[in-house]
Amino acid sequence: MINTDRYCVIMCGGIGSRFWPYSRTNKPKQFIDFLGTGRSLLQMTFDRITHVVSSDNIIIVANEMYLQLILEQLPQIRRENILLEPARRNTAPCIAWAINHIRAINPNASVVVAPSDHLILREDAFESSIIRGFEFVESHDALLTLGITPTRPETGYGYIQIGKESCPGISEVKTFTEKPDLELAKVFLKSGEFFWNSGIFLWSVKAIYKALCKYAPDVMAVLDKDNDVYASSKESEFINQNFTSCPSISIDYAVMEKADNVYVQCVSFGWSDIGTWSALYDNSAQDINRNVLQNCQGMMYRSEGNMVMTADKKVVVAVGLNDYIIADAHDVLLICPKSEEQQIKHFVNDVKATLGDEYL
Amino acid sequence: MINTDRYCVIMCGGIGSRFWPYSRTNKPKQFIDFLGTGRSLLQMTFDRITHVVSSDNIIIVANEMYLQLILEQLPQIRRENILLEPARRNTAPCIAWAINHIRAINPNASVVVAPSDHLILREDAFESSIIRGFEFVESHDALLTLGITPTRPETGYGYIQIGKESCPGISEVKTFTEKPDLELAKVFLKSGEFFWNSGIFLWSVKAIYKALCKYAPDVMAVLDKDNDVYASSKESEFINQNFTSCPSISIDYAVMEKADNVYVQCVSFGWSDIGTWSALYDNSAQDINRNVLQNCQGMMYRSEGNMVMTADKKVVVAVGLNDYIIADAHDVLLICPKSEEQQIKHFVNDVKATLGDEYL
Repeated sequence: MINTDRYCVIMCGGIGSRFWPYSRTNKPKQFIDFLGTGRSLLQMTFDRITHVVSSDNIIIVANEMYLQLILEQLPQIRRENILLEPARRNTAPCIAWAINHIRAINPNASVVVAPSDHLILREDAFESSIIRGFEFVESHDALLTLGITPTRPETGYGYIQIGKESCPGISEVKTFTEKPDLELAKVFLKSGEFFWNSGIFLWSVKAIYKALCKYAPDVMAVLDKDNDVYASSKESEFINQNFTSCPSISIDYAVMEKADNVYVQCVSFGWSDIGTWSALYDNSAQDINRNVLQNCQGMMYRSEGNMVMTADKKVVVAVGLNDYIIADAHDVLLICPKSEEQQIKHFVNDVKATLGDEYL
Repeated sequence: MINTDRYCVIMCGGIGSRFWPYSRTNKPKQFIDFLGTGRSLLQMTFDRITHVVSSDNIIIVANEMYLQLILEQLPQIRRENILLEPARRNTAPCIAWAINHIRAINPNASVVVAPSDHLILREDAFESSIIRGFEFVESHDALLTLGITPTRPETGYGYIQIGKESCPGISEVKTFTEKPDLELAKVFLKSGEFFWNSGIFLWSVKAIYKALCKYAPDVMAVLDKDNDVYASSKESEFINQNFTSCPSISIDYAVMEKADNVYVQCVSFGWSDIGTWSALYDNSAQDINRNVLQNCQGMMYRSEGNMVMTADKKVVVAVGLNDYIIADAHDVLLICPKSEEQQIKHFVNDVKATLGDEYL
């Protein structure tokens, strides 16, 4: 029996520009079936959450331009559970609005906040971690974040250093850190004290509302101007008129790094934020020549270690290419060494400058 | 005033498999606008010939599956000027049929035979060469072939060794040779005696008919079974019933290498058979980084000497690729070093064996 005081907020606002040319402004990463499973990252996130939270209690926050995509991909969701941001303002305003919305429906709610575009391989472990987290935040005045046990000296993630253990598997947070360089990441990995910052949070509405008021007063000054609108017919008009006045700030920076009741649950459930083509490659099944062939039919000659993805199950004949990204969208073809994928954002800018917005 | 005794036979039967994945069974090379000029190779061939032969006197010989493509690309041609082969039987039966057809219309005709898929850059020089050739074969009992002055030690072409000069620019043929290896090709180039075999022939109907009867009696035994059918309403039925009985043999092997009245006119008009992607590359305008970008918008980073062609003017972002063929057809993407393009026929076979005929 699922606890009806438990809610989920799925943040669906990213634009995933590092996955260009697949991830596009009008259909970002979370809406794409990157793993060729037949389900997009958003759909997989939703499916996974329904095991621990009633689907009636799952709220999606997204930019208004994605309403149609969400309705297509999640036909089971109720329209009133989709909160449409009129502008991008990073995670703190997004979460603050969703918390105000849930608070108006159920002030005793507890909430898990999850990005829509992460990969989780071991769903059972995820499920029990979330339940354990709910139990903790329902019995403590605590803001909980999930810290992923690192498996490699990754330089693309932020880390959380754990402090004193409060109860089995849940510790106080000593520090949040920025993305480290490789040397530091190796030290982090070896120490056993540092965990990847997953961006998955759990808290009671009461605890996060209090923390937002204390640590993000400029956000709440906007969103608390009229508290009667939430979960009412006036909500979207109010948001459309006021949301853009919120400062653009992340929940980590606004609240988590400042509050004194922040805890981390150390977990391990095959997580990746699939932030890059290489991350997708690393998380996909490789063939005998270490090629990952996604949605295509590859004929690979003297070609190893490539990440190949096409629209429409194209036949790809590659000769003498090693460790490349070959990404063929309908109107754009990208052929780039995996080692240079950090340049993709520059390519996107060049394309924009040269050819216009059409290809973004 | 164009001489109405002059005819042209455009041979349109090739399948251009070395240009896969662009050249496909259902739309071979000659029907494709390879140079991005807006005209296919067939259309350019036709346009070029109309300067020296009345368009009413231009005959196209092609496989029956290409009728629709020909009518689309050459709307000005009369249906009765298109001869449809029920099967591929190489050039000797193709030419023998066309000659019988023209002979029934005009036994005093002279004819230029030209492939449909060659590139000629200097049309004026082509035009005057053809006129000179017509004049020669109209005044001599001669079979004339055009030999192209070689500009490099090409190993992909057959060569013709010239003998004694008969009149300015026209010589007897000493030998026809197979494609040489590189060492021999260098010797050929240096000697000044060897010319590329262009596959462009001129002759009077009388001379070639006599030669076909003498040197290709097995072909003529089939096609001369009933001489009253040509240029009549019975022609296509007769061909459909008999053409497949012809042996498959080239005009070079059947006639040109055997006859004793064969001459070569040495010409130089920027000719290429564009038989390969590299040949297309060599004959196209290169940008400052030696890339040829055909029907696409290229953003090339540290990438030089590539031959890039896409369907639908795709944006191609290439990073760290040098001297590659990047050919993106609708359902097939080929990425292959130019130096390995001889393997393309093997790739096509592999694709056929693995994925079926759909991609041929």
